[in-house]
Amino acid sequence: MVSTLADVAEAAGVHPGTASKALNPESRHLVAAETVKRVLEIATKMNYQPNSLARGLRTKRSYTVGFMVPDLINPLFPPIVRGVEAVLGPAGLSALIVNTDNDPKREMQLFDTLVNRRCDGFILATAFRNDPVVKEIVKRKIPAVLVNRLTETQLLPAVVGDEAIEVREAIDHLVKLGHRRIAHVAGPQNLSTGYIRLRAFKEVINAVGLAEADCPTVVSTGYNESAGMDAIAKLLARPGPRPTAILAANDQLAIGVIDGLKAAGLDCPRDISVIGFNDIPMMDRVHPTLTTFALPKHQMGVEAAEILRAWIEGDAAPEPKIVYLRCPLVIRESTGPAPTN
Amino acid sequence: MVSTLADVAEAAGVHPGTASKALNPESRHLVAAETVKRVLEIATKMNYQPNSLARGLRTKRSYTVGFMVPDLINPLFPPIVRGVEAVLGPAGLSALIVNTDNDPKREMQLFDTLVNRRCDGFILATAFRNDPVVKEIVKRKIPAVLVNRLTETQLLPAVVGDEAIEVREAIDHLVKLGHRRIAHVAGPQNLSTGYIRLRAFKEVINAVGLAEADCPTVVSTGYNESAGMDAIAKLLARPGPRPTAILAANDQLAIGVIDGLKAAGLDCPRDISVIGFNDIPMMDRVHPTLTTFALPKHQMGVEAAEILRAWIEGDAAPEPKIVYLRCPLVIRESTGPAPTN
Repeated sequence: MVSTLADVAEAAGVHPGTASKALNPESRHLVAAETVKRVLEIATKMNYQPNSLARGLRTKRSYTVGFMVPDLINPLFPPIVRGVEAVLGPAGLSALIVNTDNDPKREMQLFDTLVNRRCDGFILATAFRNDPVVKEIVKRKIPAVLVNRLTETQLLPAVVGDEAIEVREAIDHLVKLGHRRIAHVAGPQNLSTGYIRLRAFKEVINAVGLAEADCPTVVSTGYNESAGMDAIAKLLARPGPRPTAILAANDQLAIGVIDGLKAAGLDCPRDISVIGFNDIPMMDRVHPTLTTFALPKHQMGVEAAEILRAWIEGDAAPEPKIVYLRCPLVIRESTGPAPTN
Repeated sequence: MVSTLADVAEAAGVHPGTASKALNPESRHLVAAETVKRVLEIATKMNYQPNSLARGLRTKRSYTVGFMVPDLINPLFPPIVRGVEAVLGPAGLSALIVNTDNDPKREMQLFDTLVNRRCDGFILATAFRNDPVVKEIVKRKIPAVLVNRLTETQLLPAVVGDEAIEVREAIDHLVKLGHRRIAHVAGPQNLSTGYIRLRAFKEVINAVGLAEADCPTVVSTGYNESAGMDAIAKLLARPGPRPTAILAANDQLAIGVIDGLKAAGLDCPRDISVIGFNDIPMMDRVHPTLTTFALPKHQMGVEAAEILRAWIEGDAAPEPKIVYLRCPLVIRESTGPAPTN
């Protein structure tokens, strides 16, 4: 059931005009704090949904937020969308989602489209390390928050996984299992997720005293299964003893690596252990089940949307700080003891 | 690289004004057919992207299409989005995607939001059998096409899987494997996908001469794994011999059924075979790999978008016909011979 403004006002024992002022972030300061609190609580309890169109006409806001996703086929992103919507919905904001296909030109065109549709703000899961859209947003002072990916210069608030710590935990896990030859299948280097994990990998390899020559890296062209297959083929073609463990920069690369191992007659984890990132759906059901880092995707969406909501509703522009989310390592079948030969 | 109108005109050997007319579906008839063909071919080859904003100002079109998805977490829908975008992009149209969570109230609110943003048309993957948004769209004469789900009365063009034939093939496959006690875990009955498959199941059971009493049905509350677990628990709790095969109304229900079988100490396919619908990603990698119908999701998006594009670009409103897509049965590990005991 939808409650009207009049319903909320009656239940709160206030005049509808007072309830309206209390519900509107832009006029809330005109009402006693205690009344605001009571009206908001009752509005939430009664499932009050502001009439966005009428509000939009008065305030010149569209009550929409543009959510730019780099690849909707990647199951990483829909749960982030869900988290964002869990915050935006109750605030009377709708997410308009666009899919950029990791194409900078398309990203700029879709950004233009959303700006022309007068979105009040943006959530960007699309950032390249050097991202013209992010620069444009900052120039135009449009509220926006990054999720999952960072830009080289931190221009906007961002919510991301704590990747450097994850890489450390992954290598610690493998070293404990006896692995000394660990390779990294890195992600694209124009994305922070690819770049930060590769840099951390090299640092951690040195820090734990593994030989660099035993721990090769291959940079993938994309975050998908076929790029993972290509990468493992390159690693297996190298001269010298092969690695006994692979840290892949995400789950799709890890799945591709495992496919490539099967194609080469090798078994995961008996011959080579594999670790991914993100814990996308089904990683607990594939064969072998995948050891990976459980990125809190829903929480990522929630935290980003909270920052954006406050900004849109009139708070001062926040500092471009980074919120790092801890991602627990979920140990499954794809990692095991290093082979003894 | 982005090509300009001038680039295209030069390469085609025509005046820019002619190229512009040839590229605009609304003025194309003013140019010789052969010239139109040449300009379009060159524009495609040169990756020419019309400037949507400028066009929108002239024609009062927004060059956006609203794509309403019932549940973005369901991996069925992103590949349909991708197919839609493969058609819309080259036509200079952008898809604005919204996620309705299968909530009729939310569906109507998001529809209002998109109408206020002046979308030129809609692709709806959200239709309930009785759907107020579909009725509203028809009343307002807004171009729109349904994908994957039908309404009870056919009001708009639609592109769907050929579900009745799939049910027949599923049961034929199971009967050939010796199964005589086949149960159906049906989807929600307010959705055509749930309703049509259940009706077809009952008809086919009769048609192939199986006993109705041996072929029970359970209606699920949603298309997700936990609903599948609940359904199989109900089926296993029934008195009498248990079914030896389950036709689940989609892959997530099938996965939940297999989880429930494991929890009950039963093995798929040794004790009970399971079939799903749609062939969402990873169904070839889960354990056991799932026998299911490979819905051509990308093609579904392409065909729906083609109908919509022609309509938006000025064709007469099409008949509300249904395009049925054939979905091949992909036989994997989850179906096997009926147990002999």
